[in-house]
Amino acid sequence: MATDPPLLQYVARPGLLDLGWGHPHPSSLPLRAWSEASRDALSRYGYQALAYGHAQGPGPLLRWLTRRLSGAEGRICTPEQTFVTAGASHALDLVCRMITRTGDTVLVAAPTYHLALRIIADHGVVVRAAPVDGSGAIDVDRLRKVIDRSGRVAMLYTVPTFANPTGASLAPERRAMLVAMARETGLTIVEDDTYRELVYEGEAPPSLWSLARADEVVRIGSFAKTVAPGLRLGWINAGPPLIEGLTRLGYVDSGGGVNHTTALTLAVFGGSGAYDEHLALVRRRYANQRDALVTALRAELPMLDVPSPDGGWFVWLRLPAGRPASGLLPVAEADGVCFVPGDRFYPDHGGHDHIRLSFSMLGAHDLAEAAGRLAGAIVRSSGGAGRR
Amino acid sequence: MATDPPLLQYVARPGLLDLGWGHPHPSSLPLRAWSEASRDALSRYGYQALAYGHAQGPGPLLRWLTRRLSGAEGRICTPEQTFVTAGASHALDLVCRMITRTGDTVLVAAPTYHLALRIIADHGVVVRAAPVDGSGAIDVDRLRKVIDRSGRVAMLYTVPTFANPTGASLAPERRAMLVAMARETGLTIVEDDTYRELVYEGEAPPSLWSLARADEVVRIGSFAKTVAPGLRLGWINAGPPLIEGLTRLGYVDSGGGVNHTTALTLAVFGGSGAYDEHLALVRRRYANQRDALVTALRAELPMLDVPSPDGGWFVWLRLPAGRPASGLLPVAEADGVCFVPGDRFYPDHGGHDHIRLSFSMLGAHDLAEAAGRLAGAIVRSSGGAGRR
Repeated sequence: MATDPPLLQYVARPGLLDLGWGHPHPSSLPLRAWSEASRDALSRYGYQALAYGHAQGPGPLLRWLTRRLSGAEGRICTPEQTFVTAGASHALDLVCRMITRTGDTVLVAAPTYHLALRIIADHGVVVRAAPVDGSGAIDVDRLRKVIDRSGRVAMLYTVPTFANPTGASLAPERRAMLVAMARETGLTIVEDDTYRELVYEGEAPPSLWSLARADEVVRIGSFAKTVAPGLRLGWINAGPPLIEGLTRLGYVDSGGGVNHTTALTLAVFGGSGAYDEHLALVRRRYANQRDALVTALRAELPMLDVPSPDGGWFVWLRLPAGRPASGLLPVAEADGVCFVPGDRFYPDHGGHDHIRLSFSMLGAHDLAEAAGRLAGAIVRSSGGAGRR
Repeated sequence: MATDPPLLQYVARPGLLDLGWGHPHPSSLPLRAWSEASRDALSRYGYQALAYGHAQGPGPLLRWLTRRLSGAEGRICTPEQTFVTAGASHALDLVCRMITRTGDTVLVAAPTYHLALRIIADHGVVVRAAPVDGSGAIDVDRLRKVIDRSGRVAMLYTVPTFANPTGASLAPERRAMLVAMARETGLTIVEDDTYRELVYEGEAPPSLWSLARADEVVRIGSFAKTVAPGLRLGWINAGPPLIEGLTRLGYVDSGGGVNHTTALTLAVFGGSGAYDEHLALVRRRYANQRDALVTALRAELPMLDVPSPDGGWFVWLRLPAGRPASGLLPVAEADGVCFVPGDRFYPDHGGHDHIRLSFSMLGAHDLAEAAGRLAGAIVRSSGGAGRR
């Protein structure tokens, strides 16, 4: 009965082109450069690369990261505002641990990252969707009323930039309104900023964190999409009291930080220029993959409005009226393609007419083929004759 | 006001020989072998070394580790009973998260690892000392009565082998009694087995986990002392329900395990023979360091009973009657040596007449010098003339 444990989270299914998982393309991972950074970190820092680290994260990474953020954003980021985590998911779990209490309400800008819903729910809170307008963007005025009416709202979780699952970004003026409202009401906004660096057109909009004056925004960053998810490395930007609280957690103090050796290796990877070099490569790769999927979908499904996101990994596709995503999935899988049904991205209800397509894991050729299969499944499931 | 963040947890104080921190000797860390394992893991597993990992830990590490444990202990260890963690401290935090509720009582076999007290207390539980006999070992009969009398006792935390801070191990017959009692009462024992591999005389006593028949013991293991603490890598052995619960935590699932790349590197480090080779080296090193400290202390302080532990990193020294450790510390620091006062290792009171000396971080020459300084401080603080 003992099964042989797999190596990876993703287990390929034969014959299936997978638009479901938001995983990196295997060829996009920096094998050679990371190997060199590992060697160089051990050589440069010697025993310090393997010893108990500074609880907040090793100084060299805090310095490189905060300089980079300060240079890219209109707000100075200091080490006192930064805590190195074992990935963005770990960061969100830590933030929930620090700022929620059992029974609190947590609002999410739905649709939102489906596994974040589980991370948040693990803390015994009530997860509810924040009000949105017709375009799906947070409706700040209605949100303020919800907050005024509700009991303790511990936080608002949102992925405002190249969002998972929509690929869309909150407009700059809406960002300013949201941050101002948080300042006035005392709401804490938790900004999951995982996709900021994966920008393909122009510049990413300013982070909510950069618009905040004090501690109203907690920002979560990640190296999973820009470098590699297996490293388990990310960070939190927040006010010094929250950062200090994290360093005082018993297990963080006892362990000497949460991922010291890897964090120091990332400092070397960043300082050598390998990070910027690699980022330029992955931006080109994912822009091409996005184009391959969007172009093929638009050609195959001219009756649908196929959005082309300016960044990130996802296309959020609205199905033809009356075609629920749940019914489409088995048809699509029989045709050799899969996706994530839209309802998974809501805490309550919604999204039944949408599907999330990820263009991160497959190359351009496979994406075009997957789009063809998906189009056939959509046409077939709507009762029409398949085009293929 | 912004300070430059340090790299490491340990910050040396000039002129001070430090017997306080339980940190590895800088020369004991496997710089070359870990560098080779990093290169080989990336070369052998390619993109799989950097992708989202299996939530429970990557198959290659689960296989190597469980085969090794099964070969060393009188109980078969399977991957279904094993979860790879980001260190032993993280493991203890996860175990508390899974099996305690706010307000529960947690018993600890005091004196015990002082930072474990904080990790446990972070979960809102009441931490109390388990009853011990005159030798300091858990008194199983009295413990059973405490459990029968108390409300919900969520767990008993203990470091039964080469303990922190005492260096002592629970006798085999006491182990069997403790496990049998746990089975009968439904108590969960959390066995912190961090020091098992650092054995210098004969063999380590059987783990409580190996004596258990089912799920009465949760065992925490670590690669911090045998390989390197900066890696943040350890594991939990427990029944499949607890292991499955851990893999279902939102942040573990979302992140693809908690330290994938490092875990896969450890699998290569283990499979290549580097682990066993390195372990033989550190055993010899720490046995020598133990001997240097114990020999010097016995020569300098003939009136005291200086124990020589069979494994681990610590000497638990009882001070002369009427010399509280708290008063000794400033005197010792003025003499250029420091330690951890014994009361830190108790949840309530006790240990005022003991100090913990760690022989892990200093070489033999420094340890002899530190013993001389400490002896001088003990003599001076007792009002006598210093010997040096």
